[in-house]
Amino acid sequence: MKLRVDLLPYGGYSDTVLVVDILRATTTAVAYLERGAAALLLTSTPEAALSLRDTVNAAGEVTRNERYLLGGERGGLPMPGFDFGNSPVEAAGQNFTGREVVMNTTNGTAAAHIAARSGKHVLLAGLVNAHAATRRARALAVEEIAIVCSGTDQRVSLEDVYAAGVLAEYLLAMGEFTVDDGARIALTLRRNLGNPLEALSSSSHGVTLERLGLGEDVRWAARISESTVVPTLVVPTLDAQADLRDVLKFVAG
Amino acid sequence: MKLRVDLLPYGGYSDTVLVVDILRATTTAVAYLERGAAALLLTSTPEAALSLRDTVNAAGEVTRNERYLLGGERGGLPMPGFDFGNSPVEAAGQNFTGREVVMNTTNGTAAAHIAARSGKHVLLAGLVNAHAATRRARALAVEEIAIVCSGTDQRVSLEDVYAAGVLAEYLLAMGEFTVDDGARIALTLRRNLGNPLEALSSSSHGVTLERLGLGEDVRWAARISESTVVPTLVVPTLDAQADLRDVLKFVAG
Repeated sequence: MKLRVDLLPYGGYSDTVLVVDILRATTTAVAYLERGAAALLLTSTPEAALSLRDTVNAAGEVTRNERYLLGGERGGLPMPGFDFGNSPVEAAGQNFTGREVVMNTTNGTAAAHIAARSGKHVLLAGLVNAHAATRRARALAVEEIAIVCSGTDQRVSLEDVYAAGVLAEYLLAMGEFTVDDGARIALTLRRNLGNPLEALSSSSHGVTLERLGLGEDVRWAARISESTVVPTLVVPTLDAQADLRDVLKFVAG
Repeated sequence: MKLRVDLLPYGGYSDTVLVVDILRATTTAVAYLERGAAALLLTSTPEAALSLRDTVNAAGEVTRNERYLLGGERGGLPMPGFDFGNSPVEAAGQNFTGREVVMNTTNGTAAAHIAARSGKHVLLAGLVNAHAATRRARALAVEEIAIVCSGTDQRVSLEDVYAAGVLAEYLLAMGEFTVDDGARIALTLRRNLGNPLEALSSSSHGVTLERLGLGEDVRWAARISESTVVPTLVVPTLDAQADLRDVLKFVAG
Protein backbone atom coordinates (compact mmCIF):
# COMPACT_ATOMS: atom_id res chain seq x y z
CA MET A 1 0.00 0.00 0.00
CA LYS A 2 1.24 3.49 -0.89
CA LEU A 3 0.98 6.47 1.42
CA ARG A 4 1.16 9.82 -0.35
CA VAL A 5 1.02 13.20 1.36
CA ASP A 6 0.40 16.17 -0.91
CA LEU A 7 1.48 19.41 0.74
CA LEU A 8 -0.97 21.15 -1.59
CA PRO A 9 -3.82 19.62 -3.62
CA TYR A 10 -2.16 18.35 -6.83
CA GLY A 11 -4.92 16.11 -8.18
CA GLY A 12 -4.52 12.73 -9.85
CA TYR A 13 -5.89 10.65 -6.97
CA SER A 14 -6.79 7.11 -7.91
CA ASP A 15 -8.01 5.57 -4.67
CA THR A 16 -8.72 6.86 -1.14
CA VAL A 17 -8.21 10.51 -0.20
CA LEU A 18 -8.18 12.18 3.21
CA VAL A 19 -8.68 15.93 2.77
CA VAL A 20 -7.18 18.03 5.58
CA ASP A 21 -7.98 21.67 6.29
CA ILE A 22 -7.58 21.56 10.01
CA LEU A 23 -7.98 25.34 10.54
CA ARG A 24 -10.86 25.04 10.15
CA ALA A 25 -13.06 23.55 7.42
CA THR A 26 -12.56 19.83 8.02
CA THR A 27 -12.65 20.31 11.80
CA THR A 28 -15.89 22.28 11.51
CA ALA A 29 -17.35 19.70 9.10
CA VAL A 30 -17.02 17.05 11.82
CA ALA A 31 -18.74 19.35 14.33
CA TYR A 32 -21.74 19.96 12.01
CA LEU A 33 -22.30 16.23 11.57
CA GLU A 34 -21.72 15.56 15.28
CA ARG A 35 -24.49 18.06 16.01
CA GLY A 36 -27.00 16.26 13.82
CA ALA A 37 -26.64 17.74 10.34
CA ALA A 38 -28.11 15.34 7.76
CA ALA A 39 -25.47 16.26 5.21
CA LEU A 40 -22.79 18.77 4.25
CA LEU A 41 -22.93 20.32 0.80
CA LEU A 42 -19.61 21.78 -0.34
CA THR A 43 -20.02 24.34 -3.11
CA SER A 44 -17.24 25.71 -5.26
CA THR A 45 -18.33 29.35 -4.81
CA PRO A 46 -20.21 31.41 -2.19
CA GLU A 47 -22.78 32.34 -4.87
CA ALA A 48 -23.57 28.66 -5.46
CA ALA A 49 -24.15 28.27 -1.71
CA LEU A 50 -26.54 31.23 -1.60
CA SER A 51 -28.48 30.08 -4.66
CA LEU A 52 -29.06 26.67 -3.09
CA ARG A 53 -30.85 28.24 -0.14
CA ASP A 54 -32.52 31.27 -1.69
CA THR A 55 -34.89 31.46 -4.61
CA VAL A 56 -35.54 34.91 -6.02
CA ASN A 57 -38.79 35.46 -7.96
CA ALA A 58 -39.46 37.98 -10.75
CA ALA A 59 -40.44 40.63 -8.19
CA GLY A 60 -37.08 40.20 -6.48
CA GLU A 61 -38.60 38.52 -3.41
CA VAL A 62 -36.41 35.91 -1.76
CA THR A 63 -37.82 32.58 -0.65
CA ARG A 64 -35.59 30.74 1.71
CA ASN A 65 -35.41 26.93 1.76
CA GLU A 66 -35.33 26.14 5.47
CA ARG A 67 -33.69 22.80 4.77
CA TYR A 68 -30.36 24.60 4.19
CA LEU A 69 -28.07 26.54 6.52
CA LEU A 70 -25.02 28.29 5.14
CA GLY A 71 -21.59 28.21 6.77
CA GLY A 72 -18.41 29.70 5.41
CA GLU A 73 -15.67 32.28 5.58
CA ARG A 74 -13.25 34.40 3.62
CA GLY A 75 -10.03 35.44 5.31
CA GLY A 76 -11.27 33.79 8.52
CA LEU A 77 -14.41 35.95 8.76
CA PRO A 78 -18.09 35.04 8.13
CA MET A 79 -19.57 35.98 4.75
CA PRO A 80 -22.57 38.26 4.09
CA GLY A 81 -25.82 36.29 3.88
CA PHE A 82 -24.33 33.22 5.50
CA ASP A 83 -25.85 31.80 8.71
CA PHE A 84 -22.57 30.75 10.27
CA GLY A 85 -18.85 31.39 10.01
CA ASN A 86 -16.52 28.44 9.78
CA SER A 87 -16.12 27.87 13.51
CA PRO A 88 -16.17 24.41 15.11
CA VAL A 89 -16.86 26.03 18.49
CA GLU A 90 -19.88 27.90 17.09
CA ALA A 91 -21.09 24.70 15.36
CA ALA A 92 -20.75 22.63 18.53
CA GLY A 93 -23.17 24.98 20.31
CA GLN A 94 -25.99 24.44 17.79
CA ASN A 95 -28.41 21.70 16.83
CA PHE A 96 -28.52 20.88 13.12
CA THR A 97 -30.92 17.93 13.23
CA GLY A 98 -32.79 17.61 9.95
CA ARG A 99 -30.84 20.40 8.28
CA GLU A 100 -28.16 20.32 5.60
CA VAL A 101 -25.22 22.66 5.99
CA VAL A 102 -23.94 24.27 2.81
CA MET A 103 -20.24 25.03 3.26
CA ASN A 104 -17.95 27.32 1.33
CA THR A 105 -14.52 28.20 2.68
CA THR A 106 -11.30 29.62 1.27
CA ASN A 107 -9.20 26.49 0.97
CA GLY A 108 -10.83 23.31 2.25
CA THR A 109 -13.76 23.23 -0.14
CA ALA A 110 -11.43 23.80 -3.12
CA ALA A 111 -9.21 20.91 -1.99
CA ALA A 112 -12.26 18.64 -1.63
CA HIS A 113 -13.34 19.47 -5.16
CA ILE A 114 -9.87 18.60 -6.54
CA ALA A 115 -9.90 15.32 -4.56
CA ALA A 116 -13.38 14.45 -5.83
CA ARG A 117 -12.37 14.79 -9.49
CA SER A 118 -10.64 11.42 -9.46
CA GLY A 119 -10.64 9.92 -5.95
CA LYS A 120 -12.71 6.76 -5.42
CA HIS A 121 -13.30 7.51 -1.75
CA VAL A 122 -13.03 11.03 -0.36
CA LEU A 123 -13.08 11.62 3.41
CA LEU A 124 -12.63 14.80 5.45
CA ALA A 125 -10.11 14.53 8.26
CA GLY A 126 -8.84 16.63 11.10
CA LEU A 127 -7.16 15.82 14.36
CA VAL A 128 -10.61 15.69 16.03
CA ASN A 129 -11.49 12.54 14.06
CA ALA A 130 -7.95 11.29 13.36
CA HIS A 131 -8.31 7.70 14.54
CA ALA A 132 -11.70 7.12 12.93
CA ALA A 133 -10.67 8.75 9.64
CA THR A 134 -7.45 6.76 9.28
CA ARG A 135 -9.17 3.47 10.19
CA ARG A 136 -11.86 4.16 7.58
CA ALA A 137 -9.25 5.05 4.94
CA ARG A 138 -7.28 1.89 5.68
CA ALA A 139 -10.43 -0.21 5.34
CA LEU A 140 -11.43 1.39 2.01
CA ALA A 141 -8.07 1.70 0.26
CA VAL A 142 -6.82 -0.90 -2.20
CA GLU A 143 -3.57 0.63 -3.47
CA GLU A 144 -3.03 4.12 -2.14
CA ILE A 145 -4.06 6.51 0.60
CA ALA A 146 -3.44 10.14 -0.27
CA ILE A 147 -3.54 12.74 2.50
CA VAL A 148 -4.18 16.09 0.86
CA CYS A 149 -3.27 19.29 2.68
CA SER A 150 -5.48 22.20 1.64
CA GLY A 151 -2.93 24.92 2.36
CA THR A 152 -3.79 28.61 2.56
CA ASP A 153 -4.25 30.63 -0.61
CA GLN A 154 -2.28 28.03 -2.58
CA ARG A 155 0.67 28.08 -0.19
CA VAL A 156 1.73 25.25 2.09
CA SER A 157 0.32 25.55 5.63
CA LEU A 158 2.34 24.23 8.52
CA GLU A 159 -0.77 23.18 10.48
CA ASP A 160 -2.10 20.98 7.67
CA VAL A 161 1.26 19.30 7.11
CA TYR A 162 1.60 18.65 10.86
CA ALA A 163 -1.92 17.15 10.96
CA ALA A 164 -1.07 15.02 7.91
CA GLY A 165 1.91 13.74 9.90
CA VAL A 166 -0.36 12.71 12.77
CA LEU A 167 -2.66 10.86 10.35
CA ALA A 168 0.35 9.27 8.63
CA GLU A 169 1.62 7.99 11.97
CA TYR A 170 -1.67 6.28 12.74
CA LEU A 171 -1.72 4.70 9.27
CA LEU A 172 1.84 3.42 9.69
CA ALA A 173 0.75 1.84 12.98
CA MET A 174 -1.91 -0.14 11.10
CA GLY A 175 0.29 -1.72 8.44
CA GLU A 176 3.09 -1.47 5.89
CA PHE A 177 3.21 1.48 3.52
CA THR A 178 5.72 2.83 1.05
CA VAL A 179 5.94 6.57 1.75
CA ASP A 180 6.76 9.51 -0.51
CA ASP A 181 8.74 12.70 0.16
CA GLY A 182 5.58 14.50 1.30
CA ALA A 183 4.85 11.84 3.91
CA ARG A 184 8.41 12.01 5.20
CA ILE A 185 8.19 15.79 5.51
CA ALA A 186 4.85 15.52 7.36
CA LEU A 187 6.15 12.82 9.73
CA THR A 188 9.25 14.89 10.48
CA LEU A 189 7.09 17.89 11.44
CA ARG A 190 4.76 15.77 13.56
CA ARG A 191 7.66 14.26 15.49
CA ASN A 192 9.54 17.50 16.08
CA LEU A 193 7.11 20.41 16.44
CA GLY A 194 5.71 19.50 19.84
CA ASN A 195 2.11 18.66 20.69
CA PRO A 196 -0.80 19.56 18.40
CA LEU A 197 -1.69 22.77 20.22
CA GLU A 198 1.91 24.00 20.12
CA ALA A 199 2.18 23.23 16.39
CA LEU A 200 -1.19 24.74 15.42
CA SER A 201 -0.72 27.85 17.56
CA SER A 202 2.69 28.54 16.03
CA SER A 203 1.45 28.34 12.44
CA SER A 204 0.86 31.54 10.51
CA HIS A 205 -2.85 30.73 10.18
CA GLY A 206 -3.09 29.87 13.90
CA VAL A 207 -1.60 33.24 14.80
CA THR A 208 -4.08 35.00 12.47
CA LEU A 209 -7.09 33.23 14.01
CA GLU A 210 -5.90 34.13 17.51
CA ARG A 211 -5.62 37.76 16.41
CA LEU A 212 -9.21 37.62 15.05
CA GLY A 213 -10.43 36.44 18.46
CA LEU A 214 -10.88 32.86 17.22
CA GLY A 215 -8.24 31.21 19.39
CA GLU A 216 -10.85 28.84 20.86
CA ASP A 217 -11.23 27.32 17.39
CA VAL A 218 -7.49 26.59 17.28
CA ARG A 219 -7.66 24.86 20.66
CA TRP A 220 -10.70 22.87 19.49
CA ALA A 221 -8.93 21.78 16.30
CA ALA A 222 -5.91 20.58 18.28
CA ARG A 223 -7.87 17.96 20.23
CA ILE A 224 -7.20 14.43 18.99
CA SER A 225 -9.97 11.91 18.25
CA GLU A 226 -12.81 13.56 20.11
CA SER A 227 -15.17 12.26 17.43
CA THR A 228 -15.71 9.08 15.44
CA VAL A 229 -17.59 10.90 12.69
CA VAL A 230 -15.91 10.79 9.28
CA PRO A 231 -17.49 13.05 6.65
CA THR A 232 -17.69 10.81 3.59
CA LEU A 233 -18.36 11.88 0.00
CA VAL A 234 -21.54 10.46 -1.44
CA VAL A 235 -21.08 9.54 -5.07
CA PRO A 236 -23.65 11.61 -6.97
CA THR A 237 -26.37 9.71 -8.77
CA LEU A 238 -27.24 10.50 -12.37
CA ASP A 239 -30.72 11.63 -11.36
CA ALA A 240 -29.37 14.17 -8.87
CA GLN A 241 -31.14 17.53 -8.88
CA ALA A 242 -29.59 19.84 -11.44
CA ASP A 243 -28.70 22.40 -8.77
CA LEU A 244 -26.65 19.78 -6.90
CA ARG A 245 -24.47 18.73 -9.86
CA ASP A 246 -21.47 20.87 -8.87
CA VAL A 247 -21.97 20.33 -5.17
CA LEU A 248 -20.11 17.73 -3.13
CA LYS A 249 -22.35 15.96 -0.62
CA PHE A 250 -20.79 14.50 2.50
CA VAL A 251 -22.61 12.46 5.13
CA ALA A 252 -21.50 11.06 8.45
CA GLY A 253 -19.67 7.78 7.96
CA MET B 1 13.84 41.45 7.16
CA LYS B 2 11.49 38.70 6.01
CA LEU B 3 12.59 35.17 5.24
CA ARG B 4 10.22 33.26 3.02
CA VAL B 5 10.70 29.66 1.90
CA ASP B 6 8.49 28.52 -0.98
CA LEU B 7 8.27 24.73 -1.10
CA LEU B 8 7.39 25.13 -4.78
CA PRO B 9 7.90 28.18 -7.02
CA TYR B 10 4.81 30.36 -6.38
CA GLY B 11 5.97 33.63 -7.93
CA GLY B 12 5.38 37.13 -6.61
CA TYR B 13 8.96 37.80 -5.47
CA SER B 14 9.72 41.43 -4.76
CA ASP B 15 13.33 41.42 -3.65
CA THR B 16 16.11 38.80 -3.44
CA VAL B 17 15.55 35.19 -4.49
CA LEU B 18 17.70 32.10 -3.94
CA VAL B 19 16.62 29.38 -6.39
CA VAL B 20 17.35 25.84 -5.15
CA ASP B 21 17.36 22.71 -7.30
CA ILE B 22 20.03 20.84 -5.44
CA LEU B 23 19.63 17.58 -7.43
CA ARG B 24 21.07 18.79 -9.66
CA ALA B 25 20.63 22.01 -11.69
CA THR B 26 21.82 24.63 -9.21
CA THR B 27 24.65 22.37 -8.01
CA THR B 28 25.77 21.80 -11.61
CA ALA B 29 25.46 25.52 -12.40
CA VAL B 30 28.08 26.26 -9.74
CA ALA B 31 30.37 23.59 -11.22
CA TYR B 32 30.15 25.06 -14.75
CA LEU B 33 31.16 28.51 -13.49
CA GLU B 34 33.88 27.06 -11.23
CA ARG B 35 35.34 25.40 -14.32
CA GLY B 36 35.60 28.64 -16.22
CA ALA B 37 32.31 29.08 -18.08
CA ALA B 38 31.84 32.74 -19.03
CA ALA B 39 28.08 32.52 -18.48
CA LEU B 40 25.12 30.19 -18.05
CA LEU B 41 22.12 30.69 -20.32
CA LEU B 42 18.92 29.13 -18.96
CA THR B 43 16.33 28.52 -21.65
CA SER B 44 12.69 27.69 -21.06
CA THR B 45 12.68 24.77 -23.55
CA PRO B 46 15.23 22.29 -24.97
CA GLU B 47 14.39 23.57 -28.47
CA ALA B 48 15.39 27.11 -27.47
CA ALA B 49 18.72 25.72 -26.24
CA LEU B 50 19.38 23.89 -29.50
CA SER B 51 18.45 26.90 -31.65
CA LEU B 52 20.92 29.09 -29.75
CA ARG B 53 23.80 26.82 -30.74
CA ASP B 54 22.73 25.57 -34.16
CA THR B 55 21.82 27.51 -37.26
CA VAL B 56 20.17 25.54 -40.05
CA ASN B 57 20.39 26.93 -43.59
CA ALA B 58 17.95 26.43 -46.48
CA ALA B 59 19.77 23.25 -47.53
CA GLY B 60 19.28 21.81 -44.04
CA GLU B 61 22.98 22.11 -43.16
CA VAL B 62 23.70 22.85 -39.50
CA THR B 63 26.26 25.43 -38.50
CA ARG B 64 27.29 25.15 -34.90
CA ASN B 65 28.25 28.22 -32.84
CA GLU B 66 31.28 27.01 -30.90
CA ARG B 67 30.71 29.64 -28.25
CA TYR B 68 27.87 27.54 -26.82
CA LEU B 69 27.80 24.15 -25.11
CA LEU B 70 24.49 22.56 -24.17
CA GLY B 71 23.79 20.85 -20.84
CA GLY B 72 20.50 19.41 -19.67
CA GLU B 73 18.36 16.45 -18.79
CA ARG B 74 14.88 15.01 -18.79
CA GLY B 75 14.05 12.42 -16.16
CA GLY B 76 17.67 12.53 -15.01
CA LEU B 77 19.10 11.51 -18.39
CA PRO B 78 20.97 13.59 -21.02
CA MET B 79 18.97 14.91 -23.99
CA PRO B 80 19.56 14.20 -27.69
CA GLY B 81 21.81 16.80 -29.30
CA PHE B 82 23.05 18.13 -25.96
CA ASP B 83 26.76 18.11 -25.14
CA PHE B 84 26.35 17.29 -21.47
CA GLY B 85 23.85 15.87 -19.03
CA ASN B 86 23.14 17.77 -15.86
CA SER B 87 25.92 16.27 -13.78
CA PRO B 88 28.13 18.34 -11.45
CA VAL B 89 30.69 15.52 -11.44
CA GLU B 90 30.84 15.51 -15.24
CA ALA B 91 31.09 19.33 -15.28
CA ALA B 92 33.89 19.36 -12.72
CA GLY B 93 36.03 17.20 -15.04
CA GLN B 94 35.85 19.68 -17.95
CA ASN B 95 37.24 23.08 -18.81
CA PHE B 96 34.68 25.63 -19.98
CA THR B 97 36.96 28.65 -20.30
CA GLY B 98 35.59 31.09 -22.88
CA ARG B 99 32.42 29.08 -23.45
CA GLU B 100 28.84 29.74 -22.42
CA VAL B 101 26.80 26.80 -21.17
CA VAL B 102 23.17 26.71 -22.27
CA MET B 103 21.18 24.84 -19.62
CA ASN B 104 17.75 23.28 -19.77
CA THR B 105 16.57 20.94 -17.04
CA THR B 106 13.25 19.57 -15.83
CA ASN B 107 12.63 21.72 -12.77
CA GLY B 108 15.44 24.14 -11.93
CA THR B 109 15.30 26.21 -15.10
CA ALA B 110 11.52 26.59 -14.77
CA ALA B 111 11.91 27.79 -11.17
CA ALA B 112 14.55 30.31 -12.23
CA HIS B 113 12.22 31.70 -14.90
CA ILE B 114 9.42 32.14 -12.34
CA ALA B 115 11.83 33.86 -9.95
CA ALA B 116 13.10 36.16 -12.69
CA ARG B 117 9.61 37.44 -13.53
CA SER B 118 9.57 39.72 -10.51
CA GLY B 119 12.68 39.19 -8.38
CA LYS B 120 15.13 42.11 -8.16
CA HIS B 121 18.10 39.83 -7.53
CA VAL B 122 18.05 36.16 -8.52
CA LEU B 123 20.82 33.82 -7.35
CA LEU B 124 21.27 30.07 -7.78
CA ALA B 125 22.05 28.19 -4.59
CA GLY B 126 22.93 24.70 -3.53
CA LEU B 127 24.71 23.28 -0.53
CA VAL B 128 28.00 23.51 -2.45
CA ASN B 129 27.86 27.32 -2.34
CA ALA B 130 25.62 27.71 0.72
CA HIS B 131 27.71 30.18 2.71
CA ALA B 132 28.58 32.40 -0.26
CA ALA B 133 25.00 32.41 -1.60
CA THR B 134 23.43 33.35 1.72
CA ARG B 135 26.02 36.06 2.41
CA ARG B 136 25.35 37.53 -1.02
CA ALA B 137 21.59 37.41 -0.52
CA ARG B 138 21.91 39.09 2.88
CA ALA B 139 24.00 41.87 1.37
CA LEU B 140 21.58 42.48 -1.53
CA ALA B 141 18.21 42.18 0.19
CA VAL B 142 16.32 45.20 1.47
CA GLU B 143 13.05 43.68 2.71
CA GLU B 144 12.81 39.99 1.91
CA ILE B 145 14.87 36.94 1.01
CA ALA B 146 12.85 34.21 -0.68
CA ILE B 147 14.33 30.73 -0.93
CA VAL B 148 12.51 28.97 -3.76
CA CYS B 149 12.51 25.17 -3.93
CA SER B 150 12.19 23.91 -7.50
CA GLY B 151 10.55 20.60 -6.59
CA THR B 152 10.18 17.71 -9.03
CA ASP B 153 7.45 17.75 -11.65
CA GLN B 154 5.51 20.34 -9.61
CA ARG B 155 5.62 18.29 -6.42
CA VAL B 156 7.54 19.19 -3.29
CA SER B 157 11.01 17.56 -3.10
CA LEU B 158 12.43 16.66 0.26
CA GLU B 159 16.02 17.40 -0.82
CA ASP B 160 15.22 20.97 -1.88
CA VAL B 161 13.32 21.70 1.34
CA TYR B 162 16.18 20.28 3.40
CA ALA B 163 18.69 22.44 1.49
CA ALA B 164 16.44 25.47 1.99
CA GLY B 165 16.60 24.70 5.72
CA VAL B 166 20.41 24.75 5.61
CA LEU B 167 20.38 28.12 3.81
CA ALA B 168 17.75 29.45 6.24
CA GLU B 169 19.93 28.48 9.18
CA TYR B 170 22.89 30.41 7.82
CA LEU B 171 20.68 33.45 7.18
CA LEU B 172 19.31 33.33 10.74
CA ALA B 173 22.90 33.29 11.98
CA MET B 174 23.51 36.59 10.16
CA GLY B 175 20.64 38.61 11.60
CA GLU B 176 17.00 38.90 12.61
CA PHE B 177 14.30 37.62 10.29
CA THR B 178 10.58 37.05 10.56
CA VAL B 179 9.98 33.56 9.14
CA ASP B 180 6.95 32.05 7.40
CA ASP B 181 5.47 28.54 7.61
CA GLY B 182 7.67 27.35 4.74
CA ALA B 183 10.84 28.45 6.54
CA ARG B 184 9.72 26.70 9.71
CA ILE B 185 9.06 23.48 7.78
CA ALA B 186 12.47 23.69 6.08
CA LEU B 187 14.29 24.38 9.36
CA THR B 188 12.51 21.45 11.02
CA LEU B 189 13.67 19.11 8.25
CA ARG B 190 17.24 20.43 8.36
CA ARG B 191 17.45 19.92 12.11
CA ASN B 192 15.95 16.43 12.17
CA LEU B 193 16.83 14.53 8.99
CA GLY B 194 20.51 13.98 9.72
CA ASN B 195 23.46 15.23 7.72
CA PRO B 196 23.13 16.44 4.11
CA LEU B 197 24.16 13.14 2.54
CA GLU B 198 21.67 11.19 4.67
CA ALA B 199 18.87 13.59 3.77
CA LEU B 200 19.64 13.78 0.04
CA SER B 201 20.16 10.02 -0.31
CA SER B 202 16.84 9.28 1.37
CA SER B 203 14.84 11.57 -0.92
CA SER B 204 12.82 10.06 -3.74
CA HIS B 205 14.93 11.91 -6.31
CA GLY B 206 18.17 10.84 -4.60
CA VAL B 207 17.08 7.20 -4.79
CA THR B 208 16.23 7.61 -8.49
CA LEU B 209 19.63 9.12 -9.32
CA GLU B 210 21.40 6.32 -7.45
CA ARG B 211 19.42 3.80 -9.49
CA LEU B 212 20.46 5.58 -12.73
CA GLY B 213 24.12 5.20 -11.72
CA LEU B 214 24.39 8.88 -10.77
CA GLY B 215 25.00 8.42 -7.05
CA GLU B 216 28.27 10.36 -7.28
CA ASP B 217 26.24 13.44 -8.19
CA VAL B 218 24.20 13.05 -4.99
CA ARG B 219 27.37 12.85 -2.92
CA TRP B 220 28.76 15.91 -4.74
CA ALA B 221 25.58 17.90 -4.11
CA ALA B 222 25.70 17.07 -0.38
CA ARG B 223 29.04 18.80 0.19
CA ILE B 224 28.67 22.13 1.98
CA SER B 225 30.38 25.33 0.82
CA GLU B 226 33.01 23.84 -1.46
CA SER B 227 32.65 26.89 -3.69
CA THR B 228 32.30 30.64 -3.31
CA VAL B 229 30.76 31.03 -6.77
CA VAL B 230 27.19 32.37 -6.77
CA PRO B 231 25.46 32.25 -10.17
CA THR B 232 23.84 35.67 -10.42
CA LEU B 233 21.15 36.75 -12.90
CA VAL B 234 22.28 39.52 -15.22
CA VAL B 235 19.47 41.96 -15.86
CA PRO B 236 18.94 41.92 -19.63
CA THR B 237 19.64 45.13 -21.48
CA LEU B 238 17.20 46.53 -23.99
CA ASP B 239 19.65 46.05 -26.82
CA ALA B 240 20.09 42.35 -26.08
CA GLN B 241 20.20 40.08 -29.13
CA ALA B 242 16.68 39.01 -30.10
CA ASP B 243 17.53 35.34 -29.63
CA LEU B 244 18.50 35.99 -26.01
CA ARG B 245 15.25 37.73 -24.99
CA ASP B 246 13.70 34.64 -23.36
CA VAL B 247 16.96 33.37 -21.97
CA LEU B 248 18.17 33.98 -18.43
CA LYS B 249 21.87 34.80 -18.26
CA PHE B 250 23.79 34.02 -15.08
CA VAL B 251 27.40 34.90 -14.42
CA ALA B 252 29.72 34.10 -11.53
CA GLY B 253 29.19 36.51 -8.68
